[in-house]
Formats: sequence, structure tokens, C-alpha cells
Amino acid sequence: MTTLKVGICGLGTVGSGTVNVIRRNAAIISGRAGVAIEIVHIGARRDNPNCDVSGIKVSRDIFDVVRDSNVDVVVELIGGTTVAKDLVIEAINNGKHVVTANKALIALHGNEILPLAAANGVTVAFEAAVAGGIPIIKAVREGVAANDIKWLAGIINGTGNFILSEMRDKGRAFADVLAEAQALGYAEADPTFDVEGIDACHKLVILASLAFGMPFRFNKAYTEGISKIDAQDVTYAEELGYRIKHLGIARKSKGGIELRVHPTLIPAKRLIANVNGVMNAVLLNGDAAGPTLYYGAGAGSEATASAVIADIVDIARGNSIPMMGFAEGEVSSQRILPIEEVETSYYLRISAEDKAGVLSEIASVLSRHGISIEALIQKEAPDDEKHVPIILLTNITQEAKLMAAVEAIESFEFVQRPVVRIRVESLAG
Amino acid sequence: MTTLKVGICGLGTVGSGTVNVIRRNAAIISGRAGVAIEIVHIGARRDNPNCDVSGIKVSRDIFDVVRDSNVDVVVELIGGTTVAKDLVIEAINNGKHVVTANKALIALHGNEILPLAAANGVTVAFEAAVAGGIPIIKAVREGVAANDIKWLAGIINGTGNFILSEMRDKGRAFADVLAEAQALGYAEADPTFDVEGIDACHKLVILASLAFGMPFRFNKAYTEGISKIDAQDVTYAEELGYRIKHLGIARKSKGGIELRVHPTLIPAKRLIANVNGVMNAVLLNGDAAGPTLYYGAGAGSEATASAVIADIVDIARGNSIPMMGFAEGEVSSQRILPIEEVETSYYLRISAEDKAGVLSEIASVLSRHGISIEALIQKEAPDDEKHVPIILLTNITQEAKLMAAVEAIESFEFVQRPVVRIRVESLAG
Repeated sequence: MTTLKVGICGLGTVGSGTVNVIRRNAAIISGRAGVAIEIVHIGARRDNPNCDVSGIKVSRDIFDVVRDSNVDVVVELIGGTTVAKDLVIEAINNGKHVVTANKALIALHGNEILPLAAANGVTVAFEAAVAGGIPIIKAVREGVAANDIKWLAGIINGTGNFILSEMRDKGRAFADVLAEAQALGYAEADPTFDVEGIDACHKLVILASLAFGMPFRFNKAYTEGISKIDAQDVTYAEELGYRIKHLGIARKSKGGIELRVHPTLIPAKRLIANVNGVMNAVLLNGDAAGPTLYYGAGAGSEATASAVIADIVDIARGNSIPMMGFAEGEVSSQRILPIEEVETSYYLRISAEDKAGVLSEIASVLSRHGISIEALIQKEAPDDEKHVPIILLTNITQEAKLMAAVEAIESFEFVQRPVVRIRVESLAG
Repeated sequence: MTTLKVGICGLGTVGSGTVNVIRRNAAIISGRAGVAIEIVHIGARRDNPNCDVSGIKVSRDIFDVVRDSNVDVVVELIGGTTVAKDLVIEAINNGKHVVTANKALIALHGNEILPLAAANGVTVAFEAAVAGGIPIIKAVREGVAANDIKWLAGIINGTGNFILSEMRDKGRAFADVLAEAQALGYAEADPTFDVEGIDACHKLVILASLAFGMPFRFNKAYTEGISKIDAQDVTYAEELGYRIKHLGIARKSKGGIELRVHPTLIPAKRLIANVNGVMNAVLLNGDAAGPTLYYGAGAGSEATASAVIADIVDIARGNSIPMMGFAEGEVSSQRILPIEEVETSYYLRISAEDKAGVLSEIASVLSRHGISIEALIQKEAPDDEKHVPIILLTNITQEAKLMAAVEAIESFEFVQRPVVRIRVESLAG
């Protein structure tokens, strides 16, 4: 049996998991790969007590790994987009395959890195960059290769999903759950990347490019976080038969590709609405397969290592999947739809004075903008308050029209600003 | 761009779907594959009005396709295990790759067919044989290749899941729902293969062999159908927080591999418990990835075609995944655990006279067999009946012990025979 020689850069959570799983499951992995997989060099600034590296060469300078002529595959697990980029580019220029879990690197610099790899006859594999242990990159590039993919929608940030799940299950406030998530280690001290949707957007951009055969377009994607979701909206959504999830959505529509991350009301009966806690799931809708869903741990040491190693096994087997899912020359730029042109339905919560004629004036504004009301909840006023919440679901309309209508509604003296607006998706196959 | 030339044998539901999808999505599929995929020959006893075959050579003798020197890949979609087996073997001997949706063929004759293919340097691919449009074969062989797979559990027969879903949602009886499923075309006129678990067992045997690296062992698997499930057991299961699903389960346990298809109580909160209607799902539990779930349409013309074409694209890309998931020489026979040795928990429904001391006698029998009671529901007797149902959940015990205890319970004069016994699985990661 020949040997594939692996160098690992970074010995943090995922790096240590990768070393541990490769060592523990060596017989199974080489049995599957048909090739022995051996870690010959680790680059890390410090040791990791969770990881036995005995018998493996360890360098404090990670660039020693990409310059080691003994290494066939470089695994980049240091994160970030500066040193990591230099490291990956040097590895490629040295004729080494690269496996990375770095979503930001691929989303922001993939358009430069992947063609360089192709020109050098090596592969850059990034299954671990999206949804941890779920083999979703493989599903998009290979599993549904027969399909014209109509849209995909994913819960692809575990921290955000944990927060929304807790808000729903326990009626807790956003800030309260976030603080707990930080204490549990689910959320970073600076939670911006997670709760404002940037991390999810990196992953969405990768999935969309593979699904539709287009370059990575992070700067064209629309991103809205969950930090403004109020506990009462979670409750009203439930009353209407919906759940609020932070989704990454990519869709082929008439005017271009929709690429958007935002809180979304989805029907409670959909399987993906029942994905809770830190778990991830991606729903793909292909014209032939119909909806297929992929669920699992989106993060964690060994779950992410599982994806890293799946890529290594693919390389060991000598497989030749095009990195972008489409053959070279078949990837082409497509128009990304500005959010104003996106068509969807909306949940609106309007806080209005509890007096006659209010609802009729609101309905009339919506109607003037070509928007109809599909469902309505009007709550009683609490004793001590002048304003009552009016909750609406609209039909499918264009974002620009909806925003114009919202502006008009907000100009009524009997309406408190702002009107709460959350997009609604049926996710019907 | 070069061309991969495909011959299709069988132009029924899946065959016509395959032709239609390959033609409709030709640009996308060739863009992904990097190779044009052209259907050059169809073998079918008759035309199919759902399918335009203009421009394609059509033969009434399907063997003309496997003898056509112009054909690179034979797609076997005729079903059955006699002619289909001859056809596949002749295709292999003629040096052609084979793609098949035939679960019975692989489960029953795969141990003969796959080595023959390997010896001839061709591939036999069978993604479409299990769970229709869900790329589950790919997930097991490639997506979780890093993992020591602990167990897998699947809803892998849509007809059975439709029947159980209707029984639960509407409180209907088995026979009533089966008749409707037959009218809707979900169930065959002879529903035995579906409701008695034979179809699910073919699929389970395939998944288990790929997961654990062992030959296909259909004749060693335990199979129990859903035809004896009573509507009241569905209701009691709900009261206990469970749903009844018809699962195929394969598990590595101490004494060997468990390989069993049977109705199973699973916690209602598990995602797979919420897979309803004709949909399929497979839950894999790997030591690194943890639980991952794959969901989608398990049957249907284009969903199954999606899987057939994914295999064709893999062949077009020149990929070299070992057919059994493990390299040649790494597949080895493993002991299949007889059902008597399987350890699980049980749901029991005992119909007993409504009198003092009955429960204590039953508990005493269970205790003597080393079985403890984890949950209990005792119902009031209806006015006109002498017997009341006692519903129990046991701890984890061995099937042989449980059956001995059930026999002892059934020997009480105050107990009506038979005691209803359904296995319970927590499916915890």
C-alpha cells in the first residue's frame, strides 16, 4: 500500500481533532482510501494538550510544512485570510494539494486561489469550510450533479441557531441567550461574525457558487443578522404556524441569482424548521431530485475533522472533481440580484394606536403598493399601553415595493416606528 | 469535449425519467462532468409516451444494448434478479461500466457481480438502489470516510412510511391506509415487498456492507413488517413521547453486526421521527462526525433518475471510488448477530384482566428475567370489557430474555395472548 503524506498547519480545535481521528481510525481510513494516510509534519506555534503528536515532526514555523518536500497534501487550519492565504498560495506553488476548513479564505479569495491550483495541477478541497461534518460540498458538486438546482437554503451557523432555538423554546431574550452562548463557548467574545450573519454568508457564497457554477461573490451578497429579533416576534411566528430561522438562501430567479442571509419565517412543519440547537442543515431543491436535506454538526473538533479527512481520502483515491463543481471554462459570472429586486413574502409587526380605522388605513397603503394580506393577528391592548401590535403576513411582493409601503405606514401618526419586517419563505419543493 | 456514450435498458418510470433529465439538463450535466453525456441506445420492449426518444437508437431486445460496441455505460433499469443479472454480467464481460437502480440485484447478487466488475476493470454503480434521490451511497462511501460508523438507521421504504404517517396523523387502521396507498399508486397490488420490509431490507443490506466493509448478507438479516401495527399502539407511543417508524438498522455491537428491519419506537423529538409521508431519510452515526442525516424523495421517476445520472457523472469524471466503499482486500466477512442476541429496549402492550395483583405479577416476571420497567401507562377498562391494556417500556435487554419473559407473561390466565412487542431505539448520537 502506498502512502499519502499529510502536513497539518494549525493545531487548534480542528487541527487536534484531525490528528486524533487520523490516528484512531487509521485502519478504517486506509482501508477506504486504498492508500495509507500518514501525518508527516505539523506546523504549530504551540503544542495542544488534547493531541498526541509523538513520532510526527513538529515545526514552530508553519511555512516549514509547505516547504517540506516530503509533504503531498497541506491541511490549512490556522484560519484568517492573510497568513493563511500566503500559506495556501505557497503550498500550491510548491505543487501540493491543499485541504482547508477556512470559509472566509475561499469566499473572499477563492477566485484567485482555485485557478492557481488548477494551473498547478493540484486540488484545493474545502468540505470542512461549510457545515462542519455534513458532506454538503460533495452533495452539491456530485450528489445532485444531474440537477438544475433551483434554490438552496441552509442553517449554516450553529451559534445563531442555538440562540433562536433557545428564544423559541424558553421565551428568552436575544441578549440573554447570547450571553449564555458565550459562557458555553458556542459564541465568540466578539459575536459579530456569527450573529450578524457574516460567517453564514461566507458559507452561503461557497455553496451558491458550486450550485450555480459562478465565481464567489461575497461582496454582492445581502446579510442581515438576528440581533434585532424580538422574543415577541418568535411567539407571533409560532401562532401563525412558522418558526424564525437564520437562513442563507441562494436562488435562481428571473433577474439573476439571489444571495442573502437573514432571519426568515419558515413553516413549522418543514423538516428544516425542526433543526435546533447548534445543529446545521442545508436544503437543496433540484429540478429532478426535488428537495433533499443534509443535517449534522456544523462545528466542533472531530465533526470538522471528519470533513477535512474526507477531502484527504478523495485526494488519496485520485478523484478528479472540478473544484467549483463545474469543469474549467464552465464557470461564468452571473448577475446577483440586489435585495431591492428580491421577491418574497413578509411578516410585518406594526405597533399602532388601538382605534377605529387604523387597520383599514394600513390595508389601503399595502393595497396601493400592490401588496395583499395573507394572514393577520390583532392583539388586545395591554391595560397600560396605548399601542397594540398588528401582525401581518403579506403575499409575495418585491422588496422595494414592500419598503415603500413600510415607509408610508411609518408616516402615519398612529403608528410607532419602526415597523418590524421579517422575510417569509415557504421552502416548498 | 469528449463524449460518454450511455445505453439504457428499460424505459419504465425510472428509465423515462433518466432520458428526460439527461436531455433537459444536458448543458448543466456536461458542464459538471467535463464530458458530454449522450444516450446512444435504448433497449425497451415498448415505447413510453412520457419520453421522447427521437434521434436515439431503440432496440426491442435489451441485450442489443450490452452488445453495442458504441456503448460505454449500460444503465440497467429493468428490475428483477434474473434477466437483469444476465444483462449486467454480459455488460461487465463486454467491458462496460454499469449503473443500476436495482436494490434486489445488488443485495442478492452483489457478492458475485462486484468482484467480476473489478476483475474486468469496470465499475458497477448503484446510488439509485437506495433511497432514490438522496445521495446516501456517496455519503457512506465518501462523505463520512473518516469515521468508524457506529450505526445507521433509515426510513428507506416510502410506502411503509406513508402508511405509518397516515395512521398517526389520522388515527386510521393499517388496512384502510394500505388500500388508499394502492389506489394512489404508492403501493403495489401485492404490497408484500414494501409492508413486510423486504424492500427496506435489500437497501439496509447494501448500506451496512458499505458502512462496515463486509459482503452483502441479505439471508442473515432480520425482517419484520408493519402489517401487524395496531392504531392503538401508534397512539400509546405518542403518549410516551415516541413515534413508530419502520426502520432499517445496522449497528456494530460486541458480538457482531446487527442487521434488522422492524417497526421501531423512536423519540418524537428526533429529526428522523419527523420524516413523514413517502419521504425517506437515513441517519448515520460516525465516531468523528457524530449523527448526520440525509433526507429526500426515496422513489419517483426523476428523483431516482437524479441518482442514476450522479453515478454516470462520477464515471464520466473518471472517479475511482471502491465499489464497496473499501479497497479490494479490505472487505471481510463479519458475524451477523442473530436477532435473539440483539440488545434493545421494548414497548409491550399486555391485555390483562382489570384486577388487583396483575401488575405486580407481570413486574415480577420481568424482574426475574432481569428486565426493569422504565415507563408505564395503565388504561381504564372500557365499560364493556373485562381486559385493560397495560403499556410498558423496558430497559435495554437481550431479545432472547425479553421473549422468555413475554412467554411467561402470556402463560398467565389473566393475560390475553398475544402480548404486543415493538422494539425501541433512542437513536442518540
